[in-house]
Amino acid sequence: MKNSVLALSVCSILTAALANADEGMWQPHQLPELEAVLKAKGLQIDAKSIAELTAFPMNAVISLGGCTASFVSKQGLALTNHHCAYSSIQHNSTAQNNLIERGFLAKTPAEELPAAPGSKILVTEAVSNVTQQIKQELTPQLQGKDRFDKIDQLRKELVAECEATAGYRCDVYSFHGGLEYYLIKQLEIRDVRLVHAPPGGVGVFGGDIDNWMWPRHTGDYAFYRAYVGKDGKPADYSADNVAFVPPSALKVSAKGVQQGDFVMVLGYPGRTNRYNTAFEVRNQFTTVLPAARQYRQEAIALIKQHAAEGSEARIKYESILAGLANYAKNYDGMIQTYQKGTTQQRKDEFEAILHRWIEAEPSRKAKYKPALLSLQQLLDADTATQQRDLILNYFGYAQLFSTSRKLYRLALEQQKPDEERETGFQQRDQERFKAGLKRMSRSFDGAVDLEIALHFLKHYAALPKPQRLAAFDQYFGIAEGFDEAAVRAKLVQIYQTSLLSDEVERLAWIGKSVEEFKTSQDPAIQFAVALADIDLQLENDSKNYAGKLAVARPKVMEAVIAFNKASQKPVYADANGTLRVTFGEVKGYQPRDGVAYQPFTTLKGISEKHTGQSPFNAPAAQLAAIAGGDFSAYAHPELKTVPVNFLSTVDTTGGNSGSPTLNGKAELVGLLFDGVIEGIIGNYDYDPALNRSIHVDSRYLLWQMEKVDGATNLTAEMEIVRE
Amino acid sequence: MKNSVLALSVCSILTAALANADEGMWQPHQLPELEAVLKAKGLQIDAKSIAELTAFPMNAVISLGGCTASFVSKQGLALTNHHCAYSSIQHNSTAQNNLIERGFLAKTPAEELPAAPGSKILVTEAVSNVTQQIKQELTPQLQGKDRFDKIDQLRKELVAECEATAGYRCDVYSFHGGLEYYLIKQLEIRDVRLVHAPPGGVGVFGGDIDNWMWPRHTGDYAFYRAYVGKDGKPADYSADNVAFVPPSALKVSAKGVQQGDFVMVLGYPGRTNRYNTAFEVRNQFTTVLPAARQYRQEAIALIKQHAAEGSEARIKYESILAGLANYAKNYDGMIQTYQKGTTQQRKDEFEAILHRWIEAEPSRKAKYKPALLSLQQLLDADTATQQRDLILNYFGYAQLFSTSRKLYRLALEQQKPDEERETGFQQRDQERFKAGLKRMSRSFDGAVDLEIALHFLKHYAALPKPQRLAAFDQYFGIAEGFDEAAVRAKLVQIYQTSLLSDEVERLAWIGKSVEEFKTSQDPAIQFAVALADIDLQLENDSKNYAGKLAVARPKVMEAVIAFNKASQKPVYADANGTLRVTFGEVKGYQPRDGVAYQPFTTLKGISEKHTGQSPFNAPAAQLAAIAGGDFSAYAHPELKTVPVNFLSTVDTTGGNSGSPTLNGKAELVGLLFDGVIEGIIGNYDYDPALNRSIHVDSRYLLWQMEKVDGATNLTAEMEIVRE
Repeated sequence: MKNSVLALSVCSILTAALANADEGMWQPHQLPELEAVLKAKGLQIDAKSIAELTAFPMNAVISLGGCTASFVSKQGLALTNHHCAYSSIQHNSTAQNNLIERGFLAKTPAEELPAAPGSKILVTEAVSNVTQQIKQELTPQLQGKDRFDKIDQLRKELVAECEATAGYRCDVYSFHGGLEYYLIKQLEIRDVRLVHAPPGGVGVFGGDIDNWMWPRHTGDYAFYRAYVGKDGKPADYSADNVAFVPPSALKVSAKGVQQGDFVMVLGYPGRTNRYNTAFEVRNQFTTVLPAARQYRQEAIALIKQHAAEGSEARIKYESILAGLANYAKNYDGMIQTYQKGTTQQRKDEFEAILHRWIEAEPSRKAKYKPALLSLQQLLDADTATQQRDLILNYFGYAQLFSTSRKLYRLALEQQKPDEERETGFQQRDQERFKAGLKRMSRSFDGAVDLEIALHFLKHYAALPKPQRLAAFDQYFGIAEGFDEAAVRAKLVQIYQTSLLSDEVERLAWIGKSVEEFKTSQDPAIQFAVALADIDLQLENDSKNYAGKLAVARPKVMEAVIAFNKASQKPVYADANGTLRVTFGEVKGYQPRDGVAYQPFTTLKGISEKHTGQSPFNAPAAQLAAIAGGDFSAYAHPELKTVPVNFLSTVDTTGGNSGSPTLNGKAELVGLLFDGVIEGIIGNYDYDPALNRSIHVDSRYLLWQMEKVDGATNLTAEMEIVRE
Repeated sequence: MKNSVLALSVCSILTAALANADEGMWQPHQLPELEAVLKAKGLQIDAKSIAELTAFPMNAVISLGGCTASFVSKQGLALTNHHCAYSSIQHNSTAQNNLIERGFLAKTPAEELPAAPGSKILVTEAVSNVTQQIKQELTPQLQGKDRFDKIDQLRKELVAECEATAGYRCDVYSFHGGLEYYLIKQLEIRDVRLVHAPPGGVGVFGGDIDNWMWPRHTGDYAFYRAYVGKDGKPADYSADNVAFVPPSALKVSAKGVQQGDFVMVLGYPGRTNRYNTAFEVRNQFTTVLPAARQYRQEAIALIKQHAAEGSEARIKYESILAGLANYAKNYDGMIQTYQKGTTQQRKDEFEAILHRWIEAEPSRKAKYKPALLSLQQLLDADTATQQRDLILNYFGYAQLFSTSRKLYRLALEQQKPDEERETGFQQRDQERFKAGLKRMSRSFDGAVDLEIALHFLKHYAALPKPQRLAAFDQYFGIAEGFDEAAVRAKLVQIYQTSLLSDEVERLAWIGKSVEEFKTSQDPAIQFAVALADIDLQLENDSKNYAGKLAVARPKVMEAVIAFNKASQKPVYADANGTLRVTFGEVKGYQPRDGVAYQPFTTLKGISEKHTGQSPFNAPAAQLAAIAGGDFSAYAHPELKTVPVNFLSTVDTTGGNSGSPTLNGKAELVGLLFDGVIEGIIGNYDYDPALNRSIHVDSRYLLWQMEKVDGATNLTAEMEIVRE
């Protein structure tokens, strides 16, 4: 427990250091230590109460897996972002009844629609520190892949034990690169239904153009409802199921916040890299991200070229395109911020100081120096093949090949006892696996898929020979050079012959034997079989690498934490998809010289931006309501109109989408849905001047529901704080 | 004098109405009436002193013809915008020594360079109200073209009489559409020399991209010096000439202004249309400007297509492209502002109220109603051919044809006594005429010119037959339809044969007889001869129209003024290129919901925008000086760095470029150089929320000159107020 004690005890000295910085994605159990800061900033409830996962408000905060949501009624009504419920809205849409465009409102429970296959609502019920249980098994003899496998095995055992109770999903999360491990137990609600989404002209107003942008005017909200069996336990969808009664629900504020007000966000941030070394940051921003941005832009151009606007194929690729574009823009913003900013300089300086501090005392040097050197060696080795790994990663967008590999891997894994199988291929993963194979029908077009494969094969073929994979070269006939016409002809042959483009055929491969794969005439299956050895070898290399990292990284983190402790600097773990709390204030920013972004946007801006063309196509009813001017119950006292979105300094990242934004009384005042492009480097570096999160204002949510969309059955169900 | 008395007396009631509006381009003689407002806003000198053209500070304010400048030393040093001196900087540039790029600094008078041919400095010495002299001759019998000719004749007589004194240039300007006439007498200094211009990375930093934009970081300044003969009288360029000693010079403030400070701008605004009728505004914004924007965009695309980047031809067209783009952007901004805004609604409302007010009283109705109806009839008639007129106007960008027409017109005019010739073709215009013919050598490329001609011929040919001109159709062989290949062949023939592309040949046509033109074999000359009759007829139609307007418009303006007087609304004349004063305060604005533009930009923004690529290519020396941080003498007290540009509410338009911006003590605190795109509809409608002018901050001017460009010989010459 030595290490975690170290991490925890750091917190007690943070009060002073934190007074002016809103950096930090805190684990709930750290909050009592931050009580003084929280009070000073404006928290009115007991900080200790937020540390309690099974008490209000924490037990109202839920995960959708990749997004956050919160219960806003005792009838299981859950509020999240429109973009988090997007696949469910899309799933229920038809050409005749496009719910993305029209929006959807179930006026009664009977009208609610099933969410997209695989949708879950996860309620975190327990977080246990299992560091000791894992670490005690990690003898010094366990190195590389053995160490990785051991950790993996211990994790699986803990998970299996935890999941023995039906209806639960458990996972072991590593913190600080393996310095600590926590077992998290979540109630897994499988019957999720779509209750309400505003029209696309509200929910995705601004679309990709406004994505990551301020000023913003997006009503990015939607409602789900959680259903369980009559016994109150999680159950598959059934008409007989009953609404889940959550232990608590958030009250929604009709008064909202004002500039400077305290806010906190509870949610499931996905991943940050705040403690990456200076070398990693430089490599990321000067090599990896520029290449990834390029590959994304190329893939976008390619898809647009081969799936004409309005075509059936384009509809299938809209979601993939959105994902590609979203992160192309994200990477671009990060690269630009990096180039203009001082992130690298500060990382270099910090590291120089850290290293001097380590060198300054023999005991410290003995304790940490070897890990520093070891980590650097590992990183160096990793960068040697990163170009290839990135290209193969984007080659993975060719679904025919990634699907066949996944299917064959399943067959290989199914030869082992369930508990020994790879994560993703166990019994518990089967539903998700199937859902993925089904989803492909809605996102795959052979002609487009072929072009993607060809494009990244071209990139791959340009790699230096030592990085290349012999089986890969042989399969595509590119060992002796890249003849585009020949490769294209080969691909045409593969796509024409393979049956994996057919959903039934795909699903039929589940459960087939390794032998059946090996004797298959399907060229995509043959690809998977041909690549299996090298795939496995690469995976083992990667596990070996991870096992080594699992020694070096925690030690370096220990040094960083010890140093930060000595410098009175805040220490929180990088985001890893677990429940966190971040707090800050409502505040604008100065994106560039001469420009001040104000903390609120208003209905006025919707009319200003409205062009009648997507993505700036506000519904006529909304425009009429804006012109009508009935804002009274929801008007900002100074702006005299309804605020639409607001900015705050809270420290969030992807995964926080849909998180409830609470005021000092823990009333819901907003819904986090984005960050600003100028602060987008935040995954590596929190800049107090530019790090801003964007929230849907609760006043806009209520105004739109009440005055425009007539979702009064839902506002009646929610507890709304009006005074 | 009745009418002008009316206009003047209105001023006395403005004090209250003006307290919160900075609208108005005031004639200097109106200022004493505004004294109370000016004092309240922050004017510290006597308002009456600004009314005196021959006293400080007015006699330091000069016109460059199309731009404004001001004397900033007793040695004739004149400060204006970089873009106002652009043609002189370009004129002195060579491929080896590109002064646009490098900038220029004469360390001694001997190093100064002659300004571009035709450059003038005009010092307004007298403004006389000649309304009475003109109106008394305008008997009711004089209608249409006769009335126009009479006014024209009276103007020319007044001008000739005034210009009898050598070294003066005079003009009669009409105010309120002909309600008043003023004779303006200006000393015309013909020996103008380029003294200093910063590098293009400062002077045109941001280029077309930032044009009309905020935040702005342009050092849009340059220095001329005025030279006169040894006798102190204007003279042609001569090495023996001496620096002109202006009666006064402006002091330059090193302390600058702060948010909320009073500022006033003295200068020569070109043209506004604030009193256009609702019909005219609607027609302008829904028909004329959209078409003009389209033609400009087409011309830009065409030129770019046929004059490849970096080619000799492209260099020739850069200036024309800049002009086309500048107004394409201007029109686009205006159209967008119009579409989003309430200009039309307010114009409609005002007119409805005005008309009701007129109808309300029989005497008013009798006095004004006929003029209202007559004006509307005239406007209706004019719109019938406006499409053709606009196309022919853009066809005028084909210089071969516009030049031949101009040359032939000169020959026709030279048949008359000088005083009867058309404006532009008199003896006094000869220098300018020649300069125009010479300038064409630097802006003409036959291949590009042909494409422009062909393009607008195509537009022309699509006009309904009744709008077409028979001679034009016959010359180009398009009477029976447009055969593009045939027209192109004809044009190729014309451009191959005509000698007008040669400067010597062009100039040789000056002074040739009408007979020589008629017998010429040059196809461009033949075009001019063929079109002469219809050109003259159109001109006469236009004069007839102007003569009729000259009855209706002043009467309507009289009604508008009387109504405004009754409503206590400010009355100033539309801008007409004469000296005006406008005042306001340093103030940012909110361009759109959620965004506040701050009133100052700073050096920080230059580093932020710098990409190393034009137009964002700040000089290395400047970037080093910014990084160096020596701002002390010129730092804004709160921003702690040097302000670059600032915003104010002053009411300006094209022609105001280069105007000195003065503080309450009449010290120069800035240099007006642009307006913001959001307020660009200002020529039709002043919106206090969005009408902002952009100024170079005097602190930036001095800092750049002193700390970066080493122009200390000039700062030493100027009187700088440091405390």
